Amino acid sequence: MLEKYINAATRRKKADLVLKNATFVDVFTGVLRKGDVAVVGEKIVGTGEYQGETEIDCTGLTVIPGYIDGHVHIESSQLSPEEFASLIVPRGTTTIIADPHEITNVCGMAGCEYIAKAAKNVPLDIKIQLPSCVPATPFETSGAVLAGKDIEKHINDEYIFGLGEFMNYPGIVYCDPDVLKKAEAAHAAAKIIDGHAPAVYGYELNGYLCAGISTDHECVTKDEIEEKISKGMYVHIRHGSSTQNLGNAKHINQKNMRRFILCTDDRHAADLKEKGHLDDALRRLVADGVDPVNAVICATLNAAECYNLKWRGAIAPFYLADLVAVDNLKNFNAKYVIKSGKLVAENGKPLFDTSKRYLPENVLNTVHLKREMKAEDFVLTLKGKKAKAMTIEPGGVVTGCEIVEVESKNGDVEVKGTDLLKLFVVERHKLTGNIGKALFKGYGFKGGALGITIAHDSHNIILMGDDNASMAKAANRLKEIGGGMVIVDGEKGEIHSLTLDIAGLMSSRDAESLQADSRALIEKAHSMGVKRDYEAFMSLAFLSLAVIPKLKITDAGLFDVEKFAFTDINA
Amino acid sequence: MLEKYINAATRRKKADLVLKNATFVDVFTGVLRKGDVAVVGEKIVGTGEYQGETEIDCTGLTVIPGYIDGHVHIESSQLSPEEFASLIVPRGTTTIIADPHEITNVCGMAGCEYIAKAAKNVPLDIKIQLPSCVPATPFETSGAVLAGKDIEKHINDEYIFGLGEFMNYPGIVYCDPDVLKKAEAAHAAAKIIDGHAPAVYGYELNGYLCAGISTDHECVTKDEIEEKISKGMYVHIRHGSSTQNLGNAKHINQKNMRRFILCTDDRHAADLKEKGHLDDALRRLVADGVDPVNAVICATLNAAECYNLKWRGAIAPFYLADLVAVDNLKNFNAKYVIKSGKLVAENGKPLFDTSKRYLPENVLNTVHLKREMKAEDFVLTLKGKKAKAMTIEPGGVVTGCEIVEVESKNGDVEVKGTDLLKLFVVERHKLTGNIGKALFKGYGFKGGALGITIAHDSHNIILMGDDNASMAKAANRLKEIGGGMVIVDGEKGEIHSLTLDIAGLMSSRDAESLQADSRALIEKAHSMGVKRDYEAFMSLAFLSLAVIPKLKITDAGLFDVEKFAFTDINA
Repeated sequence: MLEKYINAATRRKKADLVLKNATFVDVFTGVLRKGDVAVVGEKIVGTGEYQGETEIDCTGLTVIPGYIDGHVHIESSQLSPEEFASLIVPRGTTTIIADPHEITNVCGMAGCEYIAKAAKNVPLDIKIQLPSCVPATPFETSGAVLAGKDIEKHINDEYIFGLGEFMNYPGIVYCDPDVLKKAEAAHAAAKIIDGHAPAVYGYELNGYLCAGISTDHECVTKDEIEEKISKGMYVHIRHGSSTQNLGNAKHINQKNMRRFILCTDDRHAADLKEKGHLDDALRRLVADGVDPVNAVICATLNAAECYNLKWRGAIAPFYLADLVAVDNLKNFNAKYVIKSGKLVAENGKPLFDTSKRYLPENVLNTVHLKREMKAEDFVLTLKGKKAKAMTIEPGGVVTGCEIVEVESKNGDVEVKGTDLLKLFVVERHKLTGNIGKALFKGYGFKGGALGITIAHDSHNIILMGDDNASMAKAANRLKEIGGGMVIVDGEKGEIHSLTLDIAGLMSSRDAESLQADSRALIEKAHSMGVKRDYEAFMSLAFLSLAVIPKLKITDAGLFDVEKFAFTDINA
Repeated sequence: MLEKYINAATRRKKADLVLKNATFVDVFTGVLRKGDVAVVGEKIVGTGEYQGETEIDCTGLTVIPGYIDGHVHIESSQLSPEEFASLIVPRGTTTIIADPHEITNVCGMAGCEYIAKAAKNVPLDIKIQLPSCVPATPFETSGAVLAGKDIEKHINDEYIFGLGEFMNYPGIVYCDPDVLKKAEAAHAAAKIIDGHAPAVYGYELNGYLCAGISTDHECVTKDEIEEKISKGMYVHIRHGSSTQNLGNAKHINQKNMRRFILCTDDRHAADLKEKGHLDDALRRLVADGVDPVNAVICATLNAAECYNLKWRGAIAPFYLADLVAVDNLKNFNAKYVIKSGKLVAENGKPLFDTSKRYLPENVLNTVHLKREMKAEDFVLTLKGKKAKAMTIEPGGVVTGCEIVEVESKNGDVEVKGTDLLKLFVVERHKLTGNIGKALFKGYGFKGGALGITIAHDSHNIILMGDDNASMAKAANRLKEIGGGMVIVDGEKGEIHSLTLDIAGLMSSRDAESLQADSRALIEKAHSMGVKRDYEAFMSLAFLSLAVIPKLKITDAGLFDVEKFAFTDINA
């Protein structure tokens, strides 16, 4: 193959593909250059004046290396990897570092394998990080456990790129042996470890870094960014749907700029479809005053260097021909996207078959209940008239705890006619029959039940409502459809649902029809009283995440995150 | 081990070693910081305020990461790897990328293995590049041949780091299959390939780079540097004894500076001893106006990134504790050198045992002659009265060709009483009995013979003189001592020699006594007429390098480099 590259590079033979008359970003010297970009097979072979078997006129366009997303959970889009690719590749993203943390919590290694194999259907390089924290906490029942010995076993799997974000920083800092075993396994395999260290500073940060952690996407302040970079971390500039830190780019200067990279972490399908992916991040960064070439370098060469993706992230001979031709470095509208030398998208539309789906049995039908749920399963018996109720600020994931007055009838708390709702987490993986029970104040919903099988990070069933029979119907419907979202209108006797057939987290359908149905379901929830401030279903999905303050509910019970212990609902 | 690091990083336990009260270079943000640098085992565990089992007061000193020499031939020092380390480690160099091209031309893979094993005696990381061009040309007889299949076999040897400088750029650009096989083998093994592409530009450079070549240490002009960096190469700033391009540093700017690294390539023992190694390069760069922190970054982090030496080249948690405490960033006088967490040099003196030598049989006694040489072997019969004679500019390696008038007697050219000398290359590896014969004009030597077993790149015997019997004596003495340098004073009947027992290239002795003897021998050569402009012996060593214009002599005959063909001595 080298011979073919060299013959074309030296112009003894035509290149396969030439982007003619381009302006292109030279990420090594930080300038724009003019010329043709010649491609043979999957490689760039040269810049200059070239002829190709195929030629694409790039007059007036700017060619940049394909974008690299440094950290993303595909599951957050609720789309299959194939459909996800069909949205982001036409935007110019050609490589992602994917951490299948969510699906692995449900399906174990089958979840990782599924993403890796689905990736083969699409022209997007999906580098799989082995999730380091499955389960995220020991306070709930997950579908799988990846202990130190499991990481030791799987870190060398051929398709595993590195070790995913190490969220368990106390486990590292306080030297939990099984946690350290995971880091040691990654180092023995010479694989990168991604970090996750919100507000970790000073000696604690030194300790965390001594596990050999390379990146952080949770930085937000100037001091934190400076300290983390100075201690060797690459810092992500994150453009998620709910969590963003694009402002980190304010702290880029010419001395530290090689240590910034871009990521999206969690990004919803609607945002991907309507606003975009890293193209949207670049657009915003440039609008915020970041030098466009620097922004491109962060999205390309820097990420390639961070993740040791040799021969990627630049427009130069022997580099992978992942290229995006955009209108300009302000709007970043992708006119052409080339992946590994092939034109794969034009004018924002994929040119590849987006209908293929890899759908193995072991990621389907993942809602397992010990038995059919009945109304009496949702009786909530309290000892007295005071109880703890969870609250949540709209748009956030931090919950509050409020002591509320309650009335009971026949040994069951009476929420109808109050601003309280019952909240349950029904275990759906291991047939334990566990049901965690709680109260929630202020969601606004009335007359039935809402349910969802996305419940961070173990993804049991979260149910909320004011009617026990509706709650049972919701749980049973979720089992029946294999996971998703459900709303039971107890008064009308209607059940509406949306199937997320892949692990109860993602749909195998196309984004467009999925979103239409999703919008209708959300509208139904609001019509039944859910305040418009909330995201109807997705606001529920974080009520079980027992590492974010203050009060959380898991299948094992009510959890006080500040005390880091289970707590009694009776106040 | 992670537990020990973390416990010390978080100050729950004392560190092994702490450099107290230091100013240290933060290569990630390009600034100087103040604090203690704590070390456990071979790793840095943190910066801040620390206590250690051992503490070194660095008040007033500046701590920088150990220097990385991006490209060096140890053989050029004429010292063993151990003695070489004893000179450069106290200067602050802790890692070198060594290309044992010379010894491999003599000894084959045994030469590479020797360097790798000798390295274990000293606190210096010697990363071995498998020489890509053995022999350098097909126009001479070398001690070994590493063909494509040999590179395929050995590139995966455990101690091989990458593929050494690819000097045969025509072989790449014109797609010699065996040459490309070497590059393909390196890529299959995911190993880096060093380049060597003097004045290669444009489409030819594109072709060369399409073999996947990462570096160039031959750059000299602004345009060449800019083009090579923009096409993805790392550019070395070279501080050799004869070849230097420190001026490359003028072209560093904040946008391209991550792509510059330092190297020495070929550096003589006297320079190492008297002037220094990369410390001397840094000193000169800063004196020339280069920002001191940028200069340090080139010598450390940049080289680590170029050569994918993860966790090296910075002062941060989990990085290898290779550290140099210098007086300041102007003089770079190394007060303390720490290698992998151990204090290995202080005040310029090694603290390690410098007397150990690994000396395997297969790198000794490498001068093999078909039979004892006799005076008549050095008869040079010419057809007429005109012949081609080589010339050389003092201080250079480019030779000239001059047509000279000659007189012969008894079928042997008569050089006595002229400014001509006879010049021979006697094959010393394969018992071929080959003797290449030439004339040289203007060296000044009279009354005997000079000989040396360093003759780039195949290192046959080069002999020069005006007396056939002295020539034979010189050759026989070189065989007897196993290689080195010899001078025969035909009139006095004296033979003086200096042994280079390791492959005829390097001495197993200490630098000091070797240099004293070497100086005496050189003085003797000058006393016999060698012009002071020449380096007496070392100026001979490049007369056989048939890739550098214009006229060269190998064991196979006189070679016209411009015509790239052998040529007749008769003009």
